Amino acid sequence: MTELLFNKRLQVQVKNRETDERRSVIRISIELQLLTNPVHRKDLIVRLTDDTDLYFLYNLVISEEDFQSLKVQQGLLIDFTSFPQKFIDLLEQCISEQDRENPRFLLQLTSASSAFDHGPSNLNIVETNAFKHLTHLSLKLLPGSDTDIKKYLATCLSTVKEEKQQLEQKLRKTEEDLTRQLNYAQQ
Amino acid sequence: MTELLFNKRLQVQVKNRETDERRSVIRISIELQLLTNPVHRKDLIVRLTDDTDLYFLYNLVISEEDFQSLKVQQGLLIDFTSFPQKFIDLLEQCISEQDRENPRFLLQLTSASSAFDHGPSNLNIVETNAFKHLTHLSLKLLPGSDTDIKKYLATCLSTVKEEKQQLEQKLRKTEEDLTRQLNYAQQ
Repeated sequence: MTELLFNKRLQVQVKNRETDERRSVIRISIELQLLTNPVHRKDLIVRLTDDTDLYFLYNLVISEEDFQSLKVQQGLLIDFTSFPQKFIDLLEQCISEQDRENPRFLLQLTSASSAFDHGPSNLNIVETNAFKHLTHLSLKLLPGSDTDIKKYLATCLSTVKEEKQQLEQKLRKTEEDLTRQLNYAQQ
Repeated sequence: MTELLFNKRLQVQVKNRETDERRSVIRISIELQLLTNPVHRKDLIVRLTDDTDLYFLYNLVISEEDFQSLKVQQGLLIDFTSFPQKFIDLLEQCISEQDRENPRFLLQLTSASSAFDHGPSNLNIVETNAFKHLTHLSLKLLPGSDTDIKKYLATCLSTVKEEKQQLEQKLRKTEEDLTRQLNYAQQ
């Protein structure tokens, strides 16, 4: 079972080895996946995609054990259960400031390699105060394999096809309803 | 440059090593791809997909040279230029007879392996007369790799997204038009 916790487009500052900084827009989705087989476990799935580049996909799966390492490594003071909401709060903070010239909270996507197609990337939530840059959270995401991208696109395609079908129905119904009303009014 | 010559759903008789024969519906598309770089060449691309199984993809690319082998091997009497239309004529013949109890022309998809996920498949156009089964054409198709399927799904997704957008516009316009007419009629 999968619960979608967050799914929004956000401005992001993109930095890699070769290009200068640039602004871009990516979609971040956060899902909580509950598995019961073979054991009960919860995984948090973070996914970066780009609505304008269907092949762009970065993934991160955080299990409860992974979270313990992340917690120690980044000095977090919350537990796995509270982490998703805290992460979302930070993202919302970035959204609320993304149109400012000098946002206090900024989302950064950095890559050590020259292109984003290969190596891992870091998604950082950075606060800038008068004194320094403070990294609140830094998550390492891996580029999706062809199999990952294939599955992701199939899911998108099913959703869009269904939405399209609903639109077609709605259009038919709207035309019928209004034509009927129009006929009635013209009598 | 790619020219779409055919794109229809057809009934097909599916046969593999393990299962019995069964009827299924697949989509066959035929495209002519013109390449000018590095040399001028034409490729005929045959693609089998399944609208209900987004991961089902079989491909065949026939170049002019490939066609010469095919021609010799299957005793064809036409040249590469006439081949696409002849192939389409045979498919249309299958369509026109597919609702009959005993169709004279039948489309067959056979696989030597137990499942369709792996090994190659043969797409056969078979005429059955009182005396025997006559194979008019037999094409060997390869299952798409994850990369192929990824590209195919991305193309589908772009198309469906665009169609959805056009529907949204049409719905808005229909609502506006009819509401305006209704207001006018009610005055």
